[in-house]
Amino acid sequence: CDEPSGEGVNVFGFFQPKFEYNQNEGIDDSNTFNFNRARIGAMGSIPYDFSYYMVLETSPSKNNGTPYLLDAFVTYSRYDFARLSFGSFKSPISLELNTPCHKLHTINRSRVVEQLATPDRDRGFMVLGGADTTLFQYSLAITNGTGLFQNDDNKRKDYAARLVTNPHKNLKIGASYKFGKATAAVDGMPEDERTRYGADLQYKQGAFMLQAEYLYAKDVGSYTTGGGCGEPIEVHQGDIKRDGMFVMGMYKFQNNLQPVLKFEYFDSNKDVDSNTEYCTTYGLNYFFNDWTKIQANYVYRAEKEKEIDNDIFMLQVTVKF
Amino acid sequence: CDEPSGEGVNVFGFFQPKFEYNQNEGIDDSNTFNFNRARIGAMGSIPYDFSYYMVLETSPSKNNGTPYLLDAFVTYSRYDFARLSFGSFKSPISLELNTPCHKLHTINRSRVVEQLATPDRDRGFMVLGGADTTLFQYSLAITNGTGLFQNDDNKRKDYAARLVTNPHKNLKIGASYKFGKATAAVDGMPEDERTRYGADLQYKQGAFMLQAEYLYAKDVGSYTTGGGCGEPIEVHQGDIKRDGMFVMGMYKFQNNLQPVLKFEYFDSNKDVDSNTEYCTTYGLNYFFNDWTKIQANYVYRAEKEKEIDNDIFMLQVTVKF
Amino acid sequence: CDEPSGEGVNVFGFFQPKFEYNQNEGIDDSNTFNFNRARIGAMGSIPYDFSYYMVLETSPSKNNGTPYLLDAFVTYSRYDFARLSFGSFKSPISLELNTPCHKLHTINRSRVVEQLATPDRDRGFMVLGGADTTLFQYSLAITNGTGLFQNDDNKRKDYAARLVTNPHKNLKIGASYKFGKATAAVDGMPEDERTRYGADLQYKQGAFMLQAEYLYAKDVGSYTTGGGCGEPIEVHQGDIKRDGMFVMGMYKFQNNLQPVLKFEYFDSNKDVDSNTEYCTTYGLNYFFNDWTKIQANYVYRAEKEKEIDNDIFMLQVTVKF
Repeated sequence: CDEPSGEGVNVFGFFQPKFEYNQNEGIDDSNTFNFNRARIGAMGSIPYDFSYYMVLETSPSKNNGTPYLLDAFVTYSRYDFARLSFGSFKSPISLELNTPCHKLHTINRSRVVEQLATPDRDRGFMVLGGADTTLFQYSLAITNGTGLFQNDDNKRKDYAARLVTNPHKNLKIGASYKFGKATAAVDGMPEDERTRYGADLQYKQGAFMLQAEYLYAKDVGSYTTGGGCGEPIEVHQGDIKRDGMFVMGMYKFQNNLQPVLKFEYFDSNKDVDSNTEYCTTYGLNYFFNDWTKIQANYVYRAEKEKEIDNDIFMLQVTVKF
Repeated sequence: CDEPSGEGVNVFGFFQPKFEYNQNEGIDDSNTFNFNRARIGAMGSIPYDFSYYMVLETSPSKNNGTPYLLDAFVTYSRYDFARLSFGSFKSPISLELNTPCHKLHTINRSRVVEQLATPDRDRGFMVLGGADTTLFQYSLAITNGTGLFQNDDNKRKDYAARLVTNPHKNLKIGASYKFGKATAAVDGMPEDERTRYGADLQYKQGAFMLQAEYLYAKDVGSYTTGGGCGEPIEVHQGDIKRDGMFVMGMYKFQNNLQPVLKFEYFDSNKDVDSNTEYCTTYGLNYFFNDWTKIQANYVYRAEKEKEIDNDIFMLQVTVKF
Repeated sequence: CDEPSGEGVNVFGFFQPKFEYNQNEGIDDSNTFNFNRARIGAMGSIPYDFSYYMVLETSPSKNNGTPYLLDAFVTYSRYDFARLSFGSFKSPISLELNTPCHKLHTINRSRVVEQLATPDRDRGFMVLGGADTTLFQYSLAITNGTGLFQNDDNKRKDYAARLVTNPHKNLKIGASYKFGKATAAVDGMPEDERTRYGADLQYKQGAFMLQAEYLYAKDVGSYTTGGGCGEPIEVHQGDIKRDGMFVMGMYKFQNNLQPVLKFEYFDSNKDVDSNTEYCTTYGLNYFFNDWTKIQANYVYRAEKEKEIDNDIFMLQVTVKF
């Protein structure tokens, strides 16, 4: 059928021009104008029970500036307790990963989420149920486990699940789990395994909100590092246990100013001492209107071993359409 | 003029998340979630006699995941018997190539069309006439012959033509022809030549449809292989003659289920024996509505010489907007 | 907020299929169908004082065929005398650079603008004031100076300014200035410097229009060449002074035919003789309607030293939506 679907196509997107000032240990500071995210896509409903969502990431600061298909899924939503999605989508683990990118309270996600809730998007099949108003919400996904760009090369799939309960109107408690096997990075070895556990909570009281999240990761055979803050991704051989968490509080004043304070740590190897990184983010958000905001973040990065100059100041405008 | 054109811009597209299970001769089977096509674009009319069409392919499984401009043409349509298009568009040869990708009856096109009706898209100038309701329809194109990505490096162009006649309301018979010259792949040789002939028919009777198509290719100087099923394209020196065909039947039941059966062969060198490939596709399509369908295909690939394990099972959802 | 912004999203774009015939000194002539620009994007207003603009370049003839984010900026426009833009945008220097690409009077910009008004787009912050109807219009920009793809690697920014005065309803006079410092291309040297001056005028009388523009460039430490006409960009060490100009006249007849005549020269090194290039463009534009036009250009390229065969004929259709 060449007619557009009954309810029309909605074009949507958002982009985030940013100014960033970096301390660089040993050399001069630098600053640059760049982009965080820059997305454009289409979504809509198809009577009676289908919907679709397709969005491209076009930021020059992601994927070497080459645009790519980010989320693209079709959803069958006849049953609210079991909606089915097929395509590419965010992994259903972690509170902060599942906060939409244009609604994040700090400019960057926390380091533990960037490092351990990977791949942030994957291809496969998902079942979802519940809503913000129900006692429980859940998501279950079967995915390749190889992210957006690569096909799977074996019959093993990754399994991820997230359950959120809403015991009181002010409180949400979440639990996440993920398990996957992959072809061994070393020939002749048994398959590599990746396990993730997570727990999180969100408490809202009037204009105040508190979020906290803990993630634990156990990798057998091989593991990846990097990927966050523009670092390249590296695959390493060997077993590793890692964890980290963040606690974040914010208060939105009636003049639309919202100070944010976030503490986080990330232990990049639980069998080694003195490698834990601590980050404190001092943030100030200002909401011009429902579609436009500006965020200022000062990120103080503390090293356990020996303090180095690597703090960051960022100023970012988000415009949503 | 900064006003949008009189009749508005229509955003359109479709995408096809897919599950694929592959037999791999000699090693373990594998399966993966991937995407077939993922397209988004804009089209519209400009009073009184112009229209435009522009669409990007954004599938992570095409062109190494880098989006690219697929079709982009402007059409002058004052005269129904000679509409003029300028830009990039599908080559006007082959019945199956000219079936829109979201309306294909099987998930993949047949091998002979993927191998011989190349490049599937090209840049140049086209004249078209007629419609589904007229006795004749025709298309004539002058193109680079180098596909979507490369400029032509000489003054030779490719010429393609297709004529479809509709002698009875149930029957369409088509004929295709293409001829082009290119700079010789071997220095000092005369120019390389490519010739294509094709014949096809389509018969509809109520819920039943039959399609058949034959393509013949003669290459002098050099020829290309691959390009289908995700294989890389290779250029080879020498002359070659190749051909192939498919026959496909389907029946759409009132419950929106449509079984499909397709036989095809492809002879990759008519001067060599025992290289012909035979493919049988057992398909089942289900139409949720005019914009959403699911297709299951089992592709049995038979080798003349010695049977190997290379069958494929695919499950694909198409959502059109 | 997941609602679309109050005033809706406008999808817009344009594309330019082109036929080009090239003389090639020493070897056979060649011709090809290709694309000049092919853009698609979204723009809109957000009540009460914001607007956004985001557009992708998708032409297969730019950036090796890989689409990229071109302009993307958000504007705060409460005060007409000082609108603020943040993101990526055209450098506010040069009359011809700041003529929208789909409204150019010749198919290509002049060589001096392509070579000296670089990078044509940059990331940063801009202040603009005035309109076509006011006595003065101005733009002031602070940018990386590194173009659309690279982050800045130091604290130095580029400063660009443009002032246009409208002393008579038929006349506009413009002046442009740009200055930037960059990390030295040679280690241990002081920072490289780039300076640009420009002057231009536009005179309109009924159907007749005259434009003229002069640009002067002084580079200390290093400079770039290429970038125009599909040539690769090269960085060279050393100091250089370059300049050039164009004069262009056109007349639009009542039958929508518009002949254009353009003279230009470009001196690629003012300390060297006999390197100046002269170009004469004989153009004919025909406007089918407000959104569709066809342009024919014959470009005669004269060399001071020794005439070589390098003339170009181009035929281009522009369709805007």
